[in-house]
Amino acid sequence: MRLTDLETPALLLDRTQLDRNIARMRTQLDGLRVGQRPHLKTAKSIEVARRVVGRDGGPITVSTLLEAERFGEAGFTDILYAVGIAPNKLDRVIALRRRGIDLAIVTDNVEAAGAVAAAARDARERIPVLIEIDSDGHRAGVRPDQPDLLVAIARALSDGAELRGIMTHAGGSYEARTPAELVRAAAQERDSAVACAAILRGAGFAAPVVSIGSTPTALSATGLDGVTEVRAGVYLFFDLVMAGIGVASVDEIALSVLTTVIGHQRDKGWILVDAGWMAMSRDRGTASQAVDQGYGLVCDLEGNPFVDLVMISANQEHGILAIRDGSSARLPDLPFGTRLRILPNHACATAAQFGDYQVVEDGAVVARWPRFNGW
Amino acid sequence: MRLTDLETPALLLDRTQLDRNIARMRTQLDGLRVGQRPHLKTAKSIEVARRVVGRDGGPITVSTLLEAERFGEAGFTDILYAVGIAPNKLDRVIALRRRGIDLAIVTDNVEAAGAVAAAARDARERIPVLIEIDSDGHRAGVRPDQPDLLVAIARALSDGAELRGIMTHAGGSYEARTPAELVRAAAQERDSAVACAAILRGAGFAAPVVSIGSTPTALSATGLDGVTEVRAGVYLFFDLVMAGIGVASVDEIALSVLTTVIGHQRDKGWILVDAGWMAMSRDRGTASQAVDQGYGLVCDLEGNPFVDLVMISANQEHGILAIRDGSSARLPDLPFGTRLRILPNHACATAAQFGDYQVVEDGAVVARWPRFNGW
Repeated sequence: MRLTDLETPALLLDRTQLDRNIARMRTQLDGLRVGQRPHLKTAKSIEVARRVVGRDGGPITVSTLLEAERFGEAGFTDILYAVGIAPNKLDRVIALRRRGIDLAIVTDNVEAAGAVAAAARDARERIPVLIEIDSDGHRAGVRPDQPDLLVAIARALSDGAELRGIMTHAGGSYEARTPAELVRAAAQERDSAVACAAILRGAGFAAPVVSIGSTPTALSATGLDGVTEVRAGVYLFFDLVMAGIGVASVDEIALSVLTTVIGHQRDKGWILVDAGWMAMSRDRGTASQAVDQGYGLVCDLEGNPFVDLVMISANQEHGILAIRDGSSARLPDLPFGTRLRILPNHACATAAQFGDYQVVEDGAVVARWPRFNGW
Repeated sequence: MRLTDLETPALLLDRTQLDRNIARMRTQLDGLRVGQRPHLKTAKSIEVARRVVGRDGGPITVSTLLEAERFGEAGFTDILYAVGIAPNKLDRVIALRRRGIDLAIVTDNVEAAGAVAAAARDARERIPVLIEIDSDGHRAGVRPDQPDLLVAIARALSDGAELRGIMTHAGGSYEARTPAELVRAAAQERDSAVACAAILRGAGFAAPVVSIGSTPTALSATGLDGVTEVRAGVYLFFDLVMAGIGVASVDEIALSVLTTVIGHQRDKGWILVDAGWMAMSRDRGTASQAVDQGYGLVCDLEGNPFVDLVMISANQEHGILAIRDGSSARLPDLPFGTRLRILPNHACATAAQFGDYQVVEDGAVVARWPRFNGW
């Protein structure tokens, strides 16, 4: 099938570029002698998962229990659910473990640890838990300067659950703007994680796993001694935010939204297309970066970007394309019916607007890969 | 089932409030003596559609052909697809019409009109078309000061298609900030639409339908003479953007996201919950309003808002709740495991993140209504 046979909007995934991105991260992590537990919250696809970890499964990270269930059914048995656990999810965690999935969960507080341990005892199912570490003040987690809290959580877990180690996510790396800042963010993520593991081990807990991960830090780290696994995920597709941070080039972005020109407002220099925020998502992650890409950067059908042509505004099913403010580039002539590809700000958010990927290779649609959205 | 039996995050729809919102719009439009063709792009639900137009169907508006197909299968036969048509969608339009659905489409340019007329001739299927009018410079459409263009589109349609009339959407009403501005926006929407219909009729085209619609203008209009139908939709649920515009109160919002406290960063005054932007959407529609509600306003399980407690930040599956900047309100004590409800900025965007509604009445979950996302 050709791209022009697709109805629009459609989500395109360039398989050749996906494989290049997978190879790039593998080379980077092999060089750092560290394992990988790719985060599949961006892809939510069995086929993508198999390409990154191999057909026999392998360690993966998920953001929902639905992902854990679907990947589990597909033969992936070593899964980390990397969002702090809520009590109402424990029954489902236990059910997954009883189906033979080695599902580990995460928390950062004593109350949750106690609830997990109690549920584990009741179910006679030793639930493995990683303690979440706050390496940069970004979100959840115990700080390295809270050793008593760390040990209290480990103790609360010990009567029923299994303390498997620690995990952290350098969310602050998304604000890095120079290579030096990225290297520092990666070092801080590693140091915080390793320090917290040392605290636990010093208190007599094994804590074998030291899990870190974000795409910017994974690609910028110069040494990860003491780390056992890296959980990066968005690198599979990359996006304009990653390009703005400087860890990818625009032509490494494997994901785009296929759309069609439905009209013009010529006196305003506007081109209207049939992809709005329902297709692109409302993510404006580049708004705070040096180059604001609006709701996405516009490319021709082959994926070549037009100079400074971006989606400046989006309604639910309408996108407005125009030359970005301050640019002297000329609006290309794109008549009614022209098909275009829009590169997304944030691959996780844009992909989540679709139920499947149209997989593209050498300009042809070669497969349709389903995604699983929801919880 | 009780609310506390649900896993989180979940999308809650208060059926009593939905019915109140439906009744409010019906009273308003009955008073203006104008018909209604509710826009179902927010709800995307058969059950919601039946409550608003009755069990026997009735005129409805959709934003995707998937909606047209699903509503068509459920017995709704009078449907307007209110997004400018793209050539690749015409086969599907014709297939729907052949199944007995009176599906009308929209365009604002001569090229599209020619393509529709040609497809209609080839298929021997007289496709009805509304010409889109630009009443406030917001998006697509022909302006009332472009009579030649209007007539040229009508002519291009006439050889094969059916010119059914005109339609417009007062998107600019979302920027109205006072009741007087809303009344003016409604008058401008009506006047533009009626003027364009008059141009077409003066040129010898029947143009029987004059279709307008946005929730702010529908609820603010003081007279709609010459208008045949109103296409408002978000009023079914309302949201914080509508409350910010002033056409609804916060307690009229029928939609919320159920979430659970998963941890705290107490020194920062943060409460972490298991609803992030994947549940709320990335919509920040209140950011440009007088009261910025972050990613949503936080309520207790009964739906009562806490003073100034909002979701200040969101990761994919984590929300960070805190007292809004500048407020002296105290952070409520919400321990690990507490369930909360978050009111959304934009009902269309938040609802689209879920596959179904958990329907709530008197604090109990009384039904599950599926939604259809995608195209």
